[in-house]
Amino acid sequence: MSPVIGRLAIIGQGLIGSSITRAVYERKLARETVITDADPKVRKRLLELGLGEARVVDTASEAADGADMVIGCVPVRAYGEVVSEIASVLKPGAILSDVGSVKQGIVEECLPLIPDGVHFVPAHPLAGTEFSGPDAGLPRLFADRWCILTPPEGVDQTAIKTASKFWEGMGSKVEVMSPARHDTALAITSHLPHLAAFSIFHTALAQEEADHSPVIQFSAGAFKDFTRIASSNPVMWRDIFLMNREPVLKALRNFIADMEACARAIEAGDGDTLENLFSVSRSTRRKVIEKEHISQQPKKPKGELKDTLFRPYSQGD
Amino acid sequence: MSPVIGRLAIIGQGLIGSSITRAVYERKLARETVITDADPKVRKRLLELGLGEARVVDTASEAADGADMVIGCVPVRAYGEVVSEIASVLKPGAILSDVGSVKQGIVEECLPLIPDGVHFVPAHPLAGTEFSGPDAGLPRLFADRWCILTPPEGVDQTAIKTASKFWEGMGSKVEVMSPARHDTALAITSHLPHLAAFSIFHTALAQEEADHSPVIQFSAGAFKDFTRIASSNPVMWRDIFLMNREPVLKALRNFIADMEACARAIEAGDGDTLENLFSVSRSTRRKVIEKEHISQQPKKPKGELKDTLFRPYSQGD
Repeated sequence: MSPVIGRLAIIGQGLIGSSITRAVYERKLARETVITDADPKVRKRLLELGLGEARVVDTASEAADGADMVIGCVPVRAYGEVVSEIASVLKPGAILSDVGSVKQGIVEECLPLIPDGVHFVPAHPLAGTEFSGPDAGLPRLFADRWCILTPPEGVDQTAIKTASKFWEGMGSKVEVMSPARHDTALAITSHLPHLAAFSIFHTALAQEEADHSPVIQFSAGAFKDFTRIASSNPVMWRDIFLMNREPVLKALRNFIADMEACARAIEAGDGDTLENLFSVSRSTRRKVIEKEHISQQPKKPKGELKDTLFRPYSQGD
Repeated sequence: MSPVIGRLAIIGQGLIGSSITRAVYERKLARETVITDADPKVRKRLLELGLGEARVVDTASEAADGADMVIGCVPVRAYGEVVSEIASVLKPGAILSDVGSVKQGIVEECLPLIPDGVHFVPAHPLAGTEFSGPDAGLPRLFADRWCILTPPEGVDQTAIKTASKFWEGMGSKVEVMSPARHDTALAITSHLPHLAAFSIFHTALAQEEADHSPVIQFSAGAFKDFTRIASSNPVMWRDIFLMNREPVLKALRNFIADMEACARAIEAGDGDTLENLFSVSRSTRRKVIEKEHISQQPKKPKGELKDTLFRPYSQGD
């Protein structure tokens, strides 16, 4: 089978960019891969790592020049700058994509900068690890994960199909939706949990200070699972919240209202309301996991699935 | 070395009770173990399982009669009933303990029922899995986990030392504190995260209904980690919240205030406040994990530690 992409350019070689570089090589998804990073130290490291057959160049324009597909893998607030830089060298018929965690803001910023004849197919792979940088990339990072494509209205269907084949080639489950719908969904399933995980440390630290006694150390698996995402990159997350403001605020206000309802139920000793809420949540969570469970993806690593379903955690701790 | 306990009685053989039974047998912590459960089906299953050399009896009184240490492993709201039932057969000098997730309420309920000469040393092992019942027990469930002892004032120091030796014998890290302090600490590190995890599903489901489009399915590791504890037992958690009302309400109100502060910062586009909050939380979390890392516990399974520190999750998803 011939590669999905002829010449592929990947701009930015952090965790996500270098994972794509590795996956593309392992799965032979491009005939030729050109990579770069704005940071000279990263470019130097890329030469040492020698990721597959990827050619390392010094500038985004050099990488994008003549590429059939260009994927930006930079912080959410840097896309406008990158697209302005490469716009003039993008070849007609090329596919331009990204990996940003927020879509509406990136589309609004980049769309006016993209020349006619270039197909803009924004993407968001729902995958990552707690590490960053070109050494942290994993060739199987996207396997069995969602990749959400958010093409603006009127984008060429063939380009969307090619982008889908590209991500499916890396083992992802691809879903196409509007940028706005993506941002609303992720505000709840990703942005809000991150905010709650970051916040609870402030709540706990304030209590330690008020009581002059340790609190956080007496946390078992429950707190560790719950707050794992609080190890995420503060600058990256600051920018995600600033860019996805309205959907996050809406989700956050609904969440606060739900927590206030819990407070009222606890205050009133209303056990039925609590038990009902908990039961619905548990069954919903099991349905979500069940979805995972019956996923038709090939090569689904059983270990990972077992881990998701059965990894002991500290219920009751 | 002779066993820490002569005759041990374990009342209730769910996940925690049957894990203690298994651990005690594996580590030879008692000369004799007598177990029971209020549910005849569980008692029948215990006979089939044949947990070590534990003798299965039909009633709590039969189990507690003549025991040197009695551990109740029942739902938090059932301890008063159990203690009333066994009070008359408890032998002078016996240690009475429990494994409840809430301590103040259990102490207030049980202390008046306990005869003079019986040493009440309440315990809370910060450990569990998402399963329940006698088949779910694990002999190493408590290894390298905290076990918090909350003896009421004036309890015999020798009894506290014996209880500590017993839990250390199962590999736990033992800490002694007041019931009130336990409840305050766990309200933040366990009860509040459970409430948030349960609640966020309500928030997500309400949004799915409002938008007529799926949301929860587009969740990657972040949401899964964050909500793993929402698979916990609804009745057990209803009772924990009802019994630990004031500390939970205090923690919950502080958490809501912190989330409201985040909402204000996002609304105002105040990136510095967000970045600062996130940075403090990340460094705090790493300190907590670091604490784990330098834990002096013997037999600390490296795998588990690696899992805690490095298991990939979906930062950025």
